Amino acid sequence: MNIVEIINKKKRGEALSYEELEYAFMGYLNKEVASYQMSALLMAICLKGMNDKEITDLTKIFINSGEVLDLSSIEGIKVDKHSTGGIGDKTTLVVAPIVASCGVKIAKMSGRGLGYTGGTIDKLESIEGFKTDLTTTEFLKELQDIGMVIASQTKNLTPLDKEIYALRDVTGTTDSYPLIASSIMSKKIASGADKILIDLKVGSGALISNMNDAEKLANIMKNIGKEFNKETIIVISDMDTPLGRNIGNSLEVIEAIDTLKGNIDNDLGSLCIDLASKLISTAKKISEEEAKEEVLLSIKSGKAYDKFLSFVKYQHGDINSLKVSQDKICIKSEKEGIIKKVDARIIGEVSMNLGAGRKNKEDSIDHTVGIVLNKKIGDKVSKGEELCTLYVNKIKKEFNIREAFVID
Amino acid sequence: MNIVEIINKKKRGEALSYEELEYAFMGYLNKEVASYQMSALLMAICLKGMNDKEITDLTKIFINSGEVLDLSSIEGIKVDKHSTGGIGDKTTLVVAPIVASCGVKIAKMSGRGLGYTGGTIDKLESIEGFKTDLTTTEFLKELQDIGMVIASQTKNLTPLDKEIYALRDVTGTTDSYPLIASSIMSKKIASGADKILIDLKVGSGALISNMNDAEKLANIMKNIGKEFNKETIIVISDMDTPLGRNIGNSLEVIEAIDTLKGNIDNDLGSLCIDLASKLISTAKKISEEEAKEEVLLSIKSGKAYDKFLSFVKYQHGDINSLKVSQDKICIKSEKEGIIKKVDARIIGEVSMNLGAGRKNKEDSIDHTVGIVLNKKIGDKVSKGEELCTLYVNKIKKEFNIREAFVID
Repeated sequence: MNIVEIINKKKRGEALSYEELEYAFMGYLNKEVASYQMSALLMAICLKGMNDKEITDLTKIFINSGEVLDLSSIEGIKVDKHSTGGIGDKTTLVVAPIVASCGVKIAKMSGRGLGYTGGTIDKLESIEGFKTDLTTTEFLKELQDIGMVIASQTKNLTPLDKEIYALRDVTGTTDSYPLIASSIMSKKIASGADKILIDLKVGSGALISNMNDAEKLANIMKNIGKEFNKETIIVISDMDTPLGRNIGNSLEVIEAIDTLKGNIDNDLGSLCIDLASKLISTAKKISEEEAKEEVLLSIKSGKAYDKFLSFVKYQHGDINSLKVSQDKICIKSEKEGIIKKVDARIIGEVSMNLGAGRKNKEDSIDHTVGIVLNKKIGDKVSKGEELCTLYVNKIKKEFNIREAFVID
Repeated sequence: MNIVEIINKKKRGEALSYEELEYAFMGYLNKEVASYQMSALLMAICLKGMNDKEITDLTKIFINSGEVLDLSSIEGIKVDKHSTGGIGDKTTLVVAPIVASCGVKIAKMSGRGLGYTGGTIDKLESIEGFKTDLTTTEFLKELQDIGMVIASQTKNLTPLDKEIYALRDVTGTTDSYPLIASSIMSKKIASGADKILIDLKVGSGALISNMNDAEKLANIMKNIGKEFNKETIIVISDMDTPLGRNIGNSLEVIEAIDTLKGNIDNDLGSLCIDLASKLISTAKKISEEEAKEEVLLSIKSGKAYDKFLSFVKYQHGDINSLKVSQDKICIKSEKEGIIKKVDARIIGEVSMNLGAGRKNKEDSIDHTVGIVLNKKIGDKVSKGEELCTLYVNKIKKEFNIREAFVID
């Protein structure tokens, strides 16, 4: 086989065989295929697509490039949950304890964030002492002992995906459904759970901006799940506007705790209850209505929040350590009216510029900074009333965050 | 500016500005843009194309990346000739002395070949002592003294094109008209001639296999010429079957000499006369018929061959030194009939495998090996009669050259 011929084949829009994909992608991991050849192939895939078989094959190659977590020693159905990422998305911190408190085991490998805000691991690390780097033995023991675990992804899980993901990031080849789907699904399948829930974000603050594309991607991921015998539930949720009120690492943990304590009559609460109900329904083979009752009861009774506390303690975190910056800037409205829009992308950019997210992989995150939205869509606002509060440490430039709010 | 945004723009099929193209391409030459980013951009260009302005801009960027040869100190109209390459194409060795002997100055920078056979420089180097590496002063002096010069391209001419060409070769991004056209035309324009003739080969043994594509490419190159005020004549000629009878370096020089000596009633002779007539017609502003008469007279009188001898001597070559291998293999026909086809691609592959061409840039060439076709299309052949003769040094594998000949 010859890498240039493989690239040319995809350039002509032809399907690649398993052997050809393996030759190209594993060749890249083994440094036999050069990065400039892989990036040309990735661009050809972006522009010419892949058929279902190619996507499944690529997912398989990603999975086989590393170890696969074996959860079979743990009794019962194990579930996993993934969000494609958005501004203010702290659902994992809420959903996982709810699900576990209802007796469904949830095991999640998570990443650090690149872009607007930190990932779940970054958020958890705003809790002092919290350990995210677990051995497989520790991971399995915690899942057995308390029914939930969230750890950073081990190096040995889908190492090929990591390399490809990094190359896509710098070569303009991120927005390809086959590549997005195989990347997400390979990580989830290698993580070993039986049922997978994907929260697919759509809108100005997400990778996917329209419903049509989201449905295409959802179908591709469902198909992959089927091929690997992993039931996959896809929830498509809005990311035109930030989720919840807090954006930033500590601030998001605080809002998650608030939700677990029962403050659920809002967009974040609704989505978390929906996601948790779907996971419990599929794991326990009960209706979503029955599952939802369990979820609400678990929150009301305090069981869900207790599970969160046990989880933080199990991973050596001090729940009383959460810190937010003392320097605040209140952004006041310059006119009166009804909030028509709060633009997720703009809020996300300001959040990143404040230091809550990373521009480059090497950047460090400031866990104490972020944004609290005092007004959300549909709220009334009078002139001089607060739109949002910025928690800052050092300000490098003027943030034009007011333009995120469209007032009518 | 940001290279990932530039790649994304082209991926979406949008046109890039001069500044964006310069940022990307000169950035690559200056090692500020990584090879994996350039190859992704090249693939996006292959699949999404470029408009006329982008192509002219890219040509300008290639030209400006190095020095431009100034031929203005030499009197009269200076012409240049380029072939896109094919099996048995030794026309430069015939056309240049004819044109020069008719008083039209021809200055050509040429390359070494990659692929089926050697380039013009490789062919000339089968003449012992022949010097292809000239300084600018030597190049200009020879053009002034004898009216013709052929030298290898200096490092300072379009250095960016050299880098991009090498990257295209290993990333499956060779067959893009905008990239082919800007590469060829930038080299020709930087070489300083007033009039440029491009012999565009079409067929199984060429980069371009159909007439439609050839016409597209021809139009693009003509447009570029117009933009740079260089009259550009495009001749589209057949490369389904090898040109002439000899393939291989020494063998092709021998056939060129034979043609210059008057053996012109064949495909090679016809094409050379046509190309030379066009060059003389455009340089002298006379009709092609008048030009053709000059050409035929120059051959008949021996002036063209004399010019070739002066040229070889001027560049220190010993014309009596040409050597072909003494080991021959005669390939005989297994059936009787009329030759319907002699496949250029197959002949080219055998030629390369014999050692007459390079598989990789580092490979050295054996000037003494090659193929002589005893039968061409339309010839009768009886069983046992010779189809062709292979001049070999060491044979590494069985060559299935018989399949190149389709006999009916």
